[in-house]
Amino acid sequence: GMDGALPPPSPAGLSAYVVVSQLLGLTLLATTGAWLGRYRGGVAWDSTLQFNVHPLCMVLGMVFLQGDALLVYRVFRHEAKRSTKALHALLHGLALLIALVGIVAVFESHRTKGIPDMYSLHSWCGMATFVLYLLQWLLGCGFFLLPGASFSLRGRYKPHHIFFGIALFALSIAVCLLGITEMLLFNIRDSYSRFVPEGVLANTLGVLLVAFGLVVGYVLTRDDWKRPPLAEELALSMDFKTLTEGESPSGGSQ
Amino acid sequence: GMDGALPPPSPAGLSAYVVVSQLLGLTLLATTGAWLGRYRGGVAWDSTLQFNVHPLCMVLGMVFLQGDALLVYRVFRHEAKRSTKALHALLHGLALLIALVGIVAVFESHRTKGIPDMYSLHSWCGMATFVLYLLQWLLGCGFFLLPGASFSLRGRYKPHHIFFGIALFALSIAVCLLGITEMLLFNIRDSYSRFVPEGVLANTLGVLLVAFGLVVGYVLTRDDWKRPPLAEELALSMDFKTLTEGESPSGGSQ
Repeated sequence: GMDGALPPPSPAGLSAYVVVSQLLGLTLLATTGAWLGRYRGGVAWDSTLQFNVHPLCMVLGMVFLQGDALLVYRVFRHEAKRSTKALHALLHGLALLIALVGIVAVFESHRTKGIPDMYSLHSWCGMATFVLYLLQWLLGCGFFLLPGASFSLRGRYKPHHIFFGIALFALSIAVCLLGITEMLLFNIRDSYSRFVPEGVLANTLGVLLVAFGLVVGYVLTRDDWKRPPLAEELALSMDFKTLTEGESPSGGSQ
Repeated sequence: GMDGALPPPSPAGLSAYVVVSQLLGLTLLATTGAWLGRYRGGVAWDSTLQFNVHPLCMVLGMVFLQGDALLVYRVFRHEAKRSTKALHALLHGLALLIALVGIVAVFESHRTKGIPDMYSLHSWCGMATFVLYLLQWLLGCGFFLLPGASFSLRGRYKPHHIFFGIALFALSIAVCLLGITEMLLFNIRDSYSRFVPEGVLANTLGVLLVAFGLVVGYVLTRDDWKRPPLAEELALSMDFKTLTEGESPSGGSQ
């Protein structure tokens, strides 16, 4: 029959979790937009609204796009590893660019308003997260995209890449929660405790950020949802084993 | 020789990471104490200082003790599983009790000062984390300590217990960061941006909390540092396999 040509189906449940993650991600962006648009005057670059570019870019880049970049190995589980890797690097690169715009926005806004930079816990953790995220991206490109790194070096770096990838994603979400709290205490400090709509909406955004992180984290770490190696990848790693385990490689082809 | 009687050594590096985690944990507690003692008037139950019981208890219970409870399977890797399990449940139980004292402290302090409860993102995330942590503890006791649950039911619950355990630990740290930010913006809002010592100290506490979380998380998730099953546990699970995989169990022993 023609069944042999069809890729094996994704594990039951995985698709549902991925759909939920994307719905949560879009709701995140809509909620951020609603908060900034309805209660903070909207978003614009060359004006007093420049600050608002910051939360919008950070939620889009450091949460939604970073999360989706982590998910590509689960979603495109039967594509060639080469293409999935490229998409992974591309989405992280886009996230970095958008986050950079968001960081420039807050520094310029501070300069315009005469507010000092980098004094808060949010700024310390946020800057550390961004710098480490950039470093992780550069290391990832160096080890996994450039041809230089050996098979065994890649294998030894990979678990660290995965651990720090998930840790930086979690940290990014924590930093967003700090940013929400700062914004609320600077803008509606006195009415926040009276459960005004802006406070409830921004708190809800925080809860949605945590929910997005939990769903993405669950999809990433569930053992039986890991990407299965393709037949040709298994053959490759078999070749590699023969090459390194045998005393002298029998085949001379490179 | 007598070598056979000695337990196999822990993996290289694991002990160093555990030592670093404990040094970080103690530094956390000392930094929290220094902040509250030097800049917030100290800690006392029946006074205006009652609020300060809250951060102290939450850092001790929800971070230090919760983190150490997660580490016991890595540290006591060659003890009988029964004892390690009991210690795991005990440390989490102690963490819950201390956290409960911390929660009572903030509610009583709010009542005394006429401050509303549960309006901030910190309180929403914190209460959700505490309730889910209590639920996780009850489920853990029910599945793994009481004799009722079958071997296969335990096996199916275990990965979820581990995922939510690590997620709740990460969330607890994020909630502490939110609490630090709230305290600073309520107490030193105007001087925070001038890098006053209290602000720098509290920011440092936040960075230490993240570092503790990263080191504990690394120890927990590193594949080759997982607790190896003891010989008798392997025999047990072999028995179980025979019992469930064979059509009719050959042995009648329970």
